[in-house]
Amino acid sequence: MIQISGNDLNNLDKRYRTILINSLAGIRQVALVGTMDKNRQSNLSIINSVIHIGAEPSLFGYISRPHTVERHTLENILETNHYTFNFVTEHFIKNAHQTSARYPKNQSEFKECGFQEEIFENQFVFVKEASVKIGMKFLEKITIKQNNTDLIIGEIQNVFIEPSRLEKDGFVNLENTMMNSGLDTYYVPEKIGKLSYAKPNSEPQILIS
Amino acid sequence: MIQISGNDLNNLDKRYRTILINSLAGIRQVALVGTMDKNRQSNLSIINSVIHIGAEPSLFGYISRPHTVERHTLENILETNHYTFNFVTEHFIKNAHQTSARYPKNQSEFKECGFQEEIFENQFVFVKEASVKIGMKFLEKITIKQNNTDLIIGEIQNVFIEPSRLEKDGFVNLENTMMNSGLDTYYVPEKIGKLSYAKPNSEPQILIS
Repeated sequence: MIQISGNDLNNLDKRYRTILINSLAGIRQVALVGTMDKNRQSNLSIINSVIHIGAEPSLFGYISRPHTVERHTLENILETNHYTFNFVTEHFIKNAHQTSARYPKNQSEFKECGFQEEIFENQFVFVKEASVKIGMKFLEKITIKQNNTDLIIGEIQNVFIEPSRLEKDGFVNLENTMMNSGLDTYYVPEKIGKLSYAKPNSEPQILIS
Repeated sequence: MIQISGNDLNNLDKRYRTILINSLAGIRQVALVGTMDKNRQSNLSIINSVIHIGAEPSLFGYISRPHTVERHTLENILETNHYTFNFVTEHFIKNAHQTSARYPKNQSEFKECGFQEEIFENQFVFVKEASVKIGMKFLEKITIKQNNTDLIIGEIQNVFIEPSRLEKDGFVNLENTMMNSGLDTYYVPEKIGKLSYAKPNSEPQILIS
């Protein structure tokens, strides 16, 4: 094994270190975050930090890092209290990645990156092309004091799912949607199987593979 | 599209709702969290909520939910301040899933689930079989007041990576390591490609596919 100590980490080239630490955190679902400001100027940004916080109430979080392009997203959320998470398929990989470019606030990434806005109830802006869409209401911003990163917590208001993706038990099948690692390497999930509920003294069974 | 409103969500069967909300949060890297209490009794639990919080300092978070089996992990972290994240390959899917069974505190999931302990510097317990291992020092527990879920923040102390997985630019290749969605459905990542840094007015290029 290659060993990298804390001291080694401190002495690494900044770019190498950023790529290392970012990719070490694992491969995660890509979400496009749709927002509007109070003048209905839309914004779309790419994140991979959606976090399940609870099912009752239905709470998701995500991480908003200081000094990144996603800050327009956070400004809009704080202004209007609403935002959306949108999962797109690998077909849209270039469009989705392009939302990470530094567009000025008066240019919408929806238009610049080739996505269509879908306004719902006058307050949610979804990505029309997405396979799974989640409308969120902002609840709380928690600032992590060590590096001024924000955890944004919201409650699910509504969900739109392609019928073929919703399974009988409530499971949402995210086959061929995008995931990424680091800032630029994209993946799709390949299913291994579904395992039975684990209990001491019995081995888990593969239910579906 | 199937639409599920906030009102529909509230009226769903509890189990259906749990599966729905959990799987809606996306597919994420599986990590095994290794800890010891002050008497060196080890514990191993499975999570999929590792969160990249920053690269300088190198901070990762994870979510510890109330009333779940992972609470032994949190108790140990608060007692000893050290813990490890371990990424294993799909070969260990059943062993990894089995760590979610409710073992009593005096039974170690390492032994019960077929993993070997690897003690480092007398304070970190890694999974010997893991391909990527990260030693963490506890920094802060932030309680999310809406549902008493905890965000556990720590700083990376050391990293062990299989040589073939560390690329020239610092990227850690997590090919054939496990991811999951919901509580029981496992995946491996299939790479689509690496895209060039996105800039306004130019289309991203696929660098490696």
